[in-house]
Amino acid sequence: VKLLTFARDLKRRRARERENAFVIEGVRAVEELLASPLRVRGVLVAPQLDGAPRGAALRSALQAQSGPRDFGVATVSEQEFRSAAETDSPQGVLAIADIPERSFEALQVGDGYRLLVLDGVQDPGNVGTILRTAAALGVQATVALPGTVDLWNAKVVRGSMGAHFRHVAFHAELDALRAHLAAFDIPLWATGAHGTPIDALLETLPAPDRLAIAVGNEGAGISSALFDAAERTVALPIRDVESLNVAVATGILLYAVRASSS
Amino acid sequence: VKLLTFARDLKRRRARERENAFVIEGVRAVEELLASPLRVRGVLVAPQLDGAPRGAALRSALQAQSGPRDFGVATVSEQEFRSAAETDSPQGVLAIADIPERSFEALQVGDGYRLLVLDGVQDPGNVGTILRTAAALGVQATVALPGTVDLWNAKVVRGSMGAHFRHVAFHAELDALRAHLAAFDIPLWATGAHGTPIDALLETLPAPDRLAIAVGNEGAGISSALFDAAERTVALPIRDVESLNVAVATGILLYAVRASSS
Repeated sequence: VKLLTFARDLKRRRARERENAFVIEGVRAVEELLASPLRVRGVLVAPQLDGAPRGAALRSALQAQSGPRDFGVATVSEQEFRSAAETDSPQGVLAIADIPERSFEALQVGDGYRLLVLDGVQDPGNVGTILRTAAALGVQATVALPGTVDLWNAKVVRGSMGAHFRHVAFHAELDALRAHLAAFDIPLWATGAHGTPIDALLETLPAPDRLAIAVGNEGAGISSALFDAAERTVALPIRDVESLNVAVATGILLYAVRASSS
Repeated sequence: VKLLTFARDLKRRRARERENAFVIEGVRAVEELLASPLRVRGVLVAPQLDGAPRGAALRSALQAQSGPRDFGVATVSEQEFRSAAETDSPQGVLAIADIPERSFEALQVGDGYRLLVLDGVQDPGNVGTILRTAAALGVQATVALPGTVDLWNAKVVRGSMGAHFRHVAFHAELDALRAHLAAFDIPLWATGAHGTPIDALLETLPAPDRLAIAVGNEGAGISSALFDAAERTVALPIRDVESLNVAVATGILLYAVRASSS
């Protein structure tokens, strides 16, 4: 019941920040979490888990685990589970884990370093997809500036399909980003509709060895303070539509500037 | 009331196919529709429209329209409107329009021809985003093979952000696709996890002048019958994650093979 109350509480961003913990739901996500380096605080199981694909196997694995285990597994009723779950048809398993400590200081800036900056990207599904894409395309870290949705929001975590547990993503202020870029001499390219088309640019100039790329809100774009910190503004070669979906645009940009040494 | 019943009816795919009509919702979508070449059959307006951004202006424009108009505008109550709407907070305006007649026969196959093929892509939000992306990157047409969500589903239309009204997208059978590819000597590249990485491939071989690209369901991938019709299987250079979101993957592929002559 303690775990149940904790999980319910963590639906709120403030509680996640205070407790430094987040919740994930579903068989696959819990499997991925258990295989990741993140510290698990507890697992909540409900009867419907046995009906989910691989659900019975996960329950056995959780219950069979022998030796000292540093987290508890609690069983609750289907109704109780629903009160903590965020999905419409919960699979009957959720886990609470530590939000990992991540900061600019811990980043290793080497050859082919790529940093993704999110400026006010608010849709959690898009941000989850972006984290999955950044991980897949070899980006070292993703930084969320103020105005971006909480990276530990349940929809973001779900949308990232597990990439979230390994890809280094964290919230930071613009000043800290500026200091990081200056310390390692990393140019920042911001995206904006009136920027240089990225394909034309890359024909004349290969992508810098180290590079930070910033994407913004689909409607409002990037803040003027971030533009001021950017060396260039780049755009995608699009026509007929006002803009691309921000996750699609980010995928294309990260592909276009992917490091040849990575 | 006739328009209201019609709009409600068109929530079902069968009704859309029988009536050859579909519904769109929201101020922006209706504005885009009115500016498009599609034939409008009717517009439904409810009181909450005046509270939506640009809503009052749209209502005036609809009511002020003088001279012969070939579609009706009906006003219904907020409750009635909700019964036809598919969104949680409807803006109080929806329109019914003809599904445009589109087929392989009507396509102009010229230099830099690009055709996108969707094989069993089921998520309507992803398909809408894909149509928006295909339009933006200069793809001539998108073909949905059986197993793909109805292109005229309200969520697909909403996700396409108006690209849907101009970008040529239609449903077709595999045999018709095969005949089209053969008639115009268009190679088909299918995507699959074990394919040749697209970046390495394009370093040795420029993209063919005419090209069809097929993407499949994120889980199941492309059908074996479609693979049989493909000249090559290509993959994206990804790591750490099992797959990319299908809309992101499609965006990167279309960017990578974009026609230099387009």
